[in-house]
Amino acid sequence: MQWYFVALLLTFLTSSQGILTTLSQSNGKYLYDYATVPFLAEVFKLVLSSLLVWRECQISPSTRMTTEWKSVRLYVVPSIIYLIHNNVQFATLTYVDTSTYQIMGNLKIVTTGILFRLFLRRRLSNLQWMAIILLAVGTTTSQVKGCGEASCDSLFAAPIQGYMLGAVSACLSALAGVYTEFLMKKNNDSLYWQNIQLYTFGSIFNLARLVLDDYRGGYENGSWWQRLFNGYSITTWMVVLNLGSTGLLVSWLMKYADNIVKVYATSMAMLLTMVWSVYLFSFKPTLQLFLGIIICMMSLHMYFAPPNMLLDLPTQVRAAPESLKEVTVDRRTDS
Amino acid sequence: MQWYFVALLLTFLTSSQGILTTLSQSNGKYLYDYATVPFLAEVFKLVLSSLLVWRECQISPSTRMTTEWKSVRLYVVPSIIYLIHNNVQFATLTYVDTSTYQIMGNLKIVTTGILFRLFLRRRLSNLQWMAIILLAVGTTTSQVKGCGEASCDSLFAAPIQGYMLGAVSACLSALAGVYTEFLMKKNNDSLYWQNIQLYTFGSIFNLARLVLDDYRGGYENGSWWQRLFNGYSITTWMVVLNLGSTGLLVSWLMKYADNIVKVYATSMAMLLTMVWSVYLFSFKPTLQLFLGIIICMMSLHMYFAPPNMLLDLPTQVRAAPESLKEVTVDRRTDS
Repeated sequence: MQWYFVALLLTFLTSSQGILTTLSQSNGKYLYDYATVPFLAEVFKLVLSSLLVWRECQISPSTRMTTEWKSVRLYVVPSIIYLIHNNVQFATLTYVDTSTYQIMGNLKIVTTGILFRLFLRRRLSNLQWMAIILLAVGTTTSQVKGCGEASCDSLFAAPIQGYMLGAVSACLSALAGVYTEFLMKKNNDSLYWQNIQLYTFGSIFNLARLVLDDYRGGYENGSWWQRLFNGYSITTWMVVLNLGSTGLLVSWLMKYADNIVKVYATSMAMLLTMVWSVYLFSFKPTLQLFLGIIICMMSLHMYFAPPNMLLDLPTQVRAAPESLKEVTVDRRTDS
Repeated sequence: MQWYFVALLLTFLTSSQGILTTLSQSNGKYLYDYATVPFLAEVFKLVLSSLLVWRECQISPSTRMTTEWKSVRLYVVPSIIYLIHNNVQFATLTYVDTSTYQIMGNLKIVTTGILFRLFLRRRLSNLQWMAIILLAVGTTTSQVKGCGEASCDSLFAAPIQGYMLGAVSACLSALAGVYTEFLMKKNNDSLYWQNIQLYTFGSIFNLARLVLDDYRGGYENGSWWQRLFNGYSITTWMVVLNLGSTGLLVSWLMKYADNIVKVYATSMAMLLTMVWSVYLFSFKPTLQLFLGIIICMMSLHMYFAPPNMLLDLPTQVRAAPESLKEVTVDRRTDS
């Protein structure tokens, strides 16, 4: 059950990410270049993983590390998927507004389930499929606009391209997760060594983005290294550390648990952020947030609870062990 | 599975009730006295049940009919509960607006489950409890106010008495249902004879209400029998027939199925009415209606589907029949 605690920690850290990011602003504006945050988080993860793999090698000389290029090169794929995903996301936002994009983002819960089944060949029971759909429905419910909020018709009013790109975005997001799980589980390599490979490519791609942004912007704000720590406050550093830590926890879950656990942790974190916002930013609590939380809790229980806790099966099965071939237990007492 | 078709029919008839009632209005106003509708529906049910019991007696002389006053008097109880319920409803509406009252009405799904367990001693699995809660959450979700609708803060802004009376109302509503089920199932009396007893008291109480309304109104609109069919159109008669028919179907379900089946039928009917309204009255479809429908469908499946359809249990149990005592099937493949 160790994955349970890691998932819980991931939920708390992810939920504080939005809060910290908001707190790191001054009067609703970033005093620092936000694009530098993911880059520094990648570097932080890379440095920490390097230290950990070094310590691991000292403790046990038999630490498994596959260093063939044939294996290493596979670790570039998640970075490439994220690169494509970022561009699709950018294209989607030219068709739909951010709140519609956020609503569509819940689709990745379902696409993750589908790719999890197709690519990783994990069997899920019908109840687990229903739980996954309910998780997506629950997070969407919590995001339904309350009365009095602006931009009413936007959700069903976007051009069809917007919805199609949103679906592509959900598939890419799921693909990145499922592929990473495949990578982490495909051999018994040290987790830290696998992380080093992931984050080296991650750092390179993030660096490339900073350089490209500078080039595109005509070096108006100078080069990226000149403004790397500009305007950084303690809170900004906490955002970096938080982003790095959640990344490391996700890596751990990909190796020792799975994508569905991660999806639950991040979905619960989204709801938790909304609850925190009620207290911290006087966000108005809505009926739909309350309903969304109940739905997601039910979903969580449906997915992870053992069957005998859900269905009182053992007693019924034990009572009639000889008629095992007819386990179609009729749960309705009459009719 | 006969109850399944009766429940389906009840769903369709109940969903058309709201539509017919709206269609029976002229320019948003009733040209007839709406209080006469439930009275005529009771009389319709009484007449039809009398005809049916007469035919039943002719076919089989051994038709069971308990005619002792000790038994007959029990059939007045549902009428009394409805009388109290109507007054509580009236009192509740002095504290909360109608849409808050409608939202709180979903609570009766959960109270029905609780009284079903407590008074009728029916065991429900955890999954079925979750299904019942999800049904209430689903119907509530579909009723969440969209943006742009009036009276925003009403939901959490009512005085505490309003919520308490709403809870009392939900309990009374559930009590009436559970008590009726108890009545219908307590012996093998003919369904039609049981109906006659129920609807005789029902007709008397509805008649008493008409008389009392006249007295309170100082006979301004004349006596009830003078305006009984005033302004009745074909549609008004259809409303009466529809209300009577749904009542008869509910009676049937109470005897041969149960309260939970009825609760599902009427909840699904509520959603179906909203879907119909989209086409008939250009009601704007909302995201929350769509989400509510998904949640209720999941709930329906969770409650009624046989366990082996939900959990792939038989294969697992069959594969290891000797280790029956450990049916704690771990559904997660890793960690």
